[in-house]
Order: sequence, then C-alpha cells, then structure tokens
Amino acid sequence: MKQSQLFTKTQKQAPKDEVSLNAQLLLRAGFIDKEMAGVYSFLPLGLRTLNKIIEIIREEINAIGGQEILLTALQNPKIWKITGRWDDEVLDVWFKTKIKTGGEVGLGTTHEEPLVNLIKKHINSYKDLPKYVYQFQTKFRNEKRAKSGIMRLREFIMKDLYSFHANQEDLEVYYKKAQEAYLKIFNRLGLGDKTYMTYASGGTFSQYSHEFQTITSSGEDLIYVCDKCHIAVNKEIIKDLNHQCPECGNAKLHEEKAVEVGNIFKLMDKFSRALDLKYKDKEGKSKSVIMGCYGIGPQRVMGTITEIYNDNKGIIWPEAVAPFNVHLISLGKDEEAQKIYDDLLKNSIETLYDDRNVRAGEKFADSDLIGIPYRVVISGKSIDAGGVEFKKRNEIKSKIIPIKSLISKIKQS
Amino acid sequence: MKQSQLFTKTQKQAPKDEVSLNAQLLLRAGFIDKEMAGVYSFLPLGLRTLNKIIEIIREEINAIGGQEILLTALQNPKIWKITGRWDDEVLDVWFKTKIKTGGEVGLGTTHEEPLVNLIKKHINSYKDLPKYVYQFQTKFRNEKRAKSGIMRLREFIMKDLYSFHANQEDLEVYYKKAQEAYLKIFNRLGLGDKTYMTYASGGTFSQYSHEFQTITSSGEDLIYVCDKCHIAVNKEIIKDLNHQCPECGNAKLHEEKAVEVGNIFKLMDKFSRALDLKYKDKEGKSKSVIMGCYGIGPQRVMGTITEIYNDNKGIIWPEAVAPFNVHLISLGKDEEAQKIYDDLLKNSIETLYDDRNVRAGEKFADSDLIGIPYRVVISGKSIDAGGVEFKKRNEIKSKIIPIKSLISKIKQS
Repeated sequence: MKQSQLFTKTQKQAPKDEVSLNAQLLLRAGFIDKEMAGVYSFLPLGLRTLNKIIEIIREEINAIGGQEILLTALQNPKIWKITGRWDDEVLDVWFKTKIKTGGEVGLGTTHEEPLVNLIKKHINSYKDLPKYVYQFQTKFRNEKRAKSGIMRLREFIMKDLYSFHANQEDLEVYYKKAQEAYLKIFNRLGLGDKTYMTYASGGTFSQYSHEFQTITSSGEDLIYVCDKCHIAVNKEIIKDLNHQCPECGNAKLHEEKAVEVGNIFKLMDKFSRALDLKYKDKEGKSKSVIMGCYGIGPQRVMGTITEIYNDNKGIIWPEAVAPFNVHLISLGKDEEAQKIYDDLLKNSIETLYDDRNVRAGEKFADSDLIGIPYRVVISGKSIDAGGVEFKKRNEIKSKIIPIKSLISKIKQS
Repeated sequence: MKQSQLFTKTQKQAPKDEVSLNAQLLLRAGFIDKEMAGVYSFLPLGLRTLNKIIEIIREEINAIGGQEILLTALQNPKIWKITGRWDDEVLDVWFKTKIKTGGEVGLGTTHEEPLVNLIKKHINSYKDLPKYVYQFQTKFRNEKRAKSGIMRLREFIMKDLYSFHANQEDLEVYYKKAQEAYLKIFNRLGLGDKTYMTYASGGTFSQYSHEFQTITSSGEDLIYVCDKCHIAVNKEIIKDLNHQCPECGNAKLHEEKAVEVGNIFKLMDKFSRALDLKYKDKEGKSKSVIMGCYGIGPQRVMGTITEIYNDNKGIIWPEAVAPFNVHLISLGKDEEAQKIYDDLLKNSIETLYDDRNVRAGEKFADSDLIGIPYRVVISGKSIDAGGVEFKKRNEIKSKIIPIKSLISKIKQS
C-alpha cells in the first residue's frame, strides 16, 4: 500500500486520558481509535494486524477439527434464565436492552447457552460425537473498569471453541490437544517464550482449569512460574498447592505479573445437564454430553504484543502479525522506489511504501512508530553507496545491499 | 470436509413459525439457526457461503481504493445528538442500553457519525482527499417487522463504504465508479440478470440516490423497469418522473416486485457540515468535505440468492457463493471415494464428501437440499459403467465419466 493513500496519520502525543502503554502506542501509530473507554475501532493498519492474529488462531483451531460458525450478539433471556446466568448478580457484565415489539434481550458475554441450545438439534447419538465448534464473534461485557487499552474491552472479538464428547476420557484427550494447539498459537504469535500454561481453579466441577498467561509488567494477574516445567500456577490456587509446582513438585517458583491471553476449561456436564443436552450411548441409554470450552481474545493478544515489543520510538511487531513486512521509504527517488515496490508486490511481500512528500525525519519517525519488521530506504546517498539501506526494526544500524539482492535478503531473513 | 464430521443435520420440515422461503430452505439445509425473530446464527455451511459473498464484495471495494477498518457497535450518544439522530423519533431502530459506570450507549444502526468524527483527526488539507473507507461490521436495528428470514434482520453484517472528497465533481466521478463496482459485484454473485440500478429519492440534498434492486416475488419493494436501459425507478419517485425512464424517456416501464440488495447515496455535506469536517483548499480556505456512502448487506444478498435459486428439492447455489463446489457421494465405495476426495483437495476443489453410513436416498435428498453445484456419485454401479456419476445441481440426468477425467471436467465446467 502507498502511504500517501492511507487515511490515517500518526500522532506525536497520545491523548492525555489514555493511561495504558498499548493504547498510547497503537493510537499514536494510527492502528486504533477510541470510541469510549473500553471501546476501540480498528483502523487499516490495526485491522491488518488483528486479522493476522485471527488467521493464525483459525488455522490452529481448524487443525484440531474445529468447525467455524457465527452466533449472534442479541441473546434471548429464556435459555439464560434456565442456567441462572440471566441474573445480574450471577453474571455481572450484561448489557441489556429491549425489542420494540416487546421483550428484553441481552448482548452475549459468552455463548455456552445458545450453542448448547443449538447443538441439541444436531446431536442424538454417540455416533454424532465428538464435535468441535468455534467462532470469532463480538462479545459485549459491561466492565466496571476499562483502563487497560485494548486488553480489557467492553466490546471485543473472542475466539470461543466448544467441544462435545461422549465421556470424560474423550474430553481429556481433546483437552490435551487443545493445550498443544494453544502453545503453538502463542509461539506463532511471537509470545511463546513469555507465555505459560497456568494452573487455575477448575470451579466446582473439575480440579483445574488452565490459563495461558504472558509475562508483562502491565499484567493484572500474579502467577508463580516453574522454570523446570515451563508452567505456572495462578495466585488463586497457589496456597492450595503449598506453593509447589503441580507437575514436578518444585517449590522454587517465582512470582511474575502476567496477562491472561487464553483459557481452557473442562465444563463437564454443567451446561448439558442444565439445558438437557443428551445423547444415546451404544446400549441406547440416555447420557449427558461432556463439554470443554477454549477461549482466546485476539485484541488482548494484540495489546499484549504491543506491551512487550516496543522501544522508546514505537512498536516492534513480530513478523507473523506485522501489518506489512517491509516499509519502503523513498527519499527523493520515487521512480526507483516504485520499481522496487512493484518487485516486492510481485514477490508477495506485503509492503507499505512511503511515497509521501514529507521530510526524511518524519518518514523515519513514523516508520519506527508503526514498527514494520524491515525498513528499506532508497535515496541518492544509498544509490551512490551501491543500493538501498536495509535495517530490521530492532537493529540500530542499517547496511547497504544491492537492489537486485533485496528480495532474496528479505526472504532469507 | 467429510460430512460425517459436519455437526449440522438437515431437517425434513422447517419450523412452523418460519414463513419466509429463504429461512425455510436455509434452516432445513443446516445453513442457519434462528435465535429469535430477525436474529439468525450462521452454521458451517452458511458461514462458508456468507464469507464467499463478503470476499467478492471486499475484492471489488478494494479495487476502487477502499481501505478496510472496523468501527464499534457501541455508540457514544454525544455525536449522534449533534446530528439529531439520537432521537428515536428521527432514527426509530435504535437499541439503547447503559454502561454500568454511568451513561447511555446505543448499538450502531449505521456509522456516518462515528466515521466522520474519526476521520476529522486525519483530514486537514485538500492533499488528504479523496479517501475511501469501508468495513464489514455488525449493525443492530430494532425493526418492528422481522418476518423475511435473513432478508430483514435485527442483527446483520453490513458493508458500508464512505467516500470523502474535496468537491462534488470528484464525488460524481467516484459515485460512477462505485455504481460500476456494484454491478460487477452483483454479476459475480450470480444476481446480475435480475438486478437493476434503480433511481430513488435523493433526500433534501441530491436529486437521486440509487438502489440496487433484485427482482423476486418475495421482494417488499415495487420497481418500474426500463428494458432498454436495464435500469429501474423506485415506486417512491415514479410519479415525479411521470412514469418515464430518467435515462431514455421510455414510458413503457413494467412493474416488478424486488428486494433492495444495495444502495448508494450522495451525502454531499450533510454530515461534514453538522460535525464540522473541513479541509483547507489550495488557497488555504476552509471548506466542508463532500461525502458519499455505499451499502450492501451480505446476509440479505444470501437470502435473495436463496429465494431465486431453488426448486422443490432445495437450494441451487451459484458457483461463486456455494459452500463447496463438489458434493462427492460414496455409495459403499469408501476406499475409491477417499482417493477421489484426496485428488479433489489436491487440486484445490472445495469438496463436501458424504462418507456417512446412511441410505442412498437420504444422501441424494440432502445433496439436493444443500445445493452444491456439482454432484459426483461413486457406487458399484457407476464403477461398472466406467467411472462416476456426474451431475450439475440444476440438471436432471447424470452422466458417467471416467474417474481420471473428473478433475478436468469440473475445471472446464
């Protein structure tokens, strides 16, 4: 894309009311815009990054058999009253509103109830199990506190996967697969080193649930990390475990601030029992379906990446989620730059081409703020020196490389 | 995809309260599920078709310079009060709700106000114009009447494009481009022959707006078609035009029932004036930005296609939007079918493979109901006859073709 056509501009300063680092950087770089506290729009650069995060998650969930659907935000109270979760005392983040022709509706905060209600129409027998169903859908949560930029939103996309099984053994096998898929996802997103599968409370019906916690000083959670197992324990259950690692017994766990980027949960028969989701087993006996659920919030992932990968000049995107791979900057050499741009596109290398008629200093500052992984500068000086200046966003010094080896250099990097 | 893994089942009968043909067929075939009147979920087959429609629209809007963003559903009343549209008497389809920490919010029914408010931060000078910004975003409309299946929804995705110009001449040029893009879109969606660019009221600030109306007996609108120009006139302005074609003067227009699948509108300075969206021209004078807006509802398109392309057995999807291209059916020849399935996938031909252990009659009935363009049946009989039975969904008789020419046959078709 040509930067002269991009409608967003960068800002030198973030708005004063924006206290979180992720929102400050993303607002300044033109990735997002604030509609109100906890409610942000995604602009062209921001939507590109968000969609890359979503696509990585989608690929890994498809790889473990997920079938994608799209449920609705508007929720009929009827089924939520059956499970008791329509009550604001039980679920305290509802937005509720009214249909003009009569009747209250809520905006979905999560989707166990409607999905169980839907899948009842399609599951009769053990032959119909297991099934894995997921969506990327907008949730609404009437949060009292919304000051963490895009890490705690009142309106956000969630990947929520639900699995349906004939028995607990089958759930356990899939739960393990989902754990592995989640670790793969966070690896691909560039958060692998800092993300720990974390033991958390399982509620009344399982021993543990598992969170995926990424270490960052802006995290709202405290976790206790076992370096031997690369796992962690959430603060809420660390006492119950006598401050020991539940896998190896290691008692030397260190406390870290972290943000929950995903969680997985064995729901067992909690919702299927309440909503009468049954199947007939091989002997024709009626049994409750056993369920698991598995969530990731792409915007929170994007906020976490921003919090971790930045310096005093701006964001430093991991390649897999960068809005573009190359930031091509022309300093008065538009004809030569256009040829390089065409060549990069021909090689399917996503490029933002800064063709604007502005000062070199402004182009460099914007490039650092936006944080595209590779910067390629063409100028009279670079041509005299033998080609283009090439620099990774996290490197200090650029080097000159011949124009004809640029493509292979990027493909190797 | 293997049909044994698909979680949805077809239904012989639609629910009795479902009066529209599109919802009856899509519900029976397992494409959608009804949450409440005017609120439908999209299941794996339905989401595949919906995403194909969205992708066609996206490609054509990108081709006329559109930059994709994602605005929010939750709307701050402040800007809507400035234009007067927060008032339920002015805009009568609001869902309104409250933030727990105080303050009312609405669910966006359209997005002129927030987008103008956003783009003010990025447009200063004539050099920043024109710009074209669009999204696929979920709208909420508190409709009193919601009985047309997925053709009039209370919650639906809309592609809304907004263009920003320095003057009316520039808007006119882009408006023409958008008209052409829309005709291309409806052509690609399989609705070209039945869709007419339709003159409609322009409101107080332009002579005309344009709707794109598709002829179908289930349409809620009346249009008057000029066969000479392949355009139409909406009922609301036909009297003002003395029942004549506004392009050629033809007075022999015929009345048709139609559904509005898109509309485009010159907003001129209506919103930029109200919300103070200005730019500096070459002489440094401050002027109001001139705007256009351009909408298409992918679900309504999907409903319209369903209403038009069906027979007494089910849906007949146009290829471009079919959930899969080939429906491969094994009648007791799973080993051979698996090989064909692998071969189809290797050739990037999207295939639903019916590997279920059910009667042939059930497989055929489901295949006709789901409506995938090509049906390939492998059975002992077909092998004896020299290959597989091949049939298009809209053909009555199948023919035998050798397995080794199947791929090229499909690619040619």
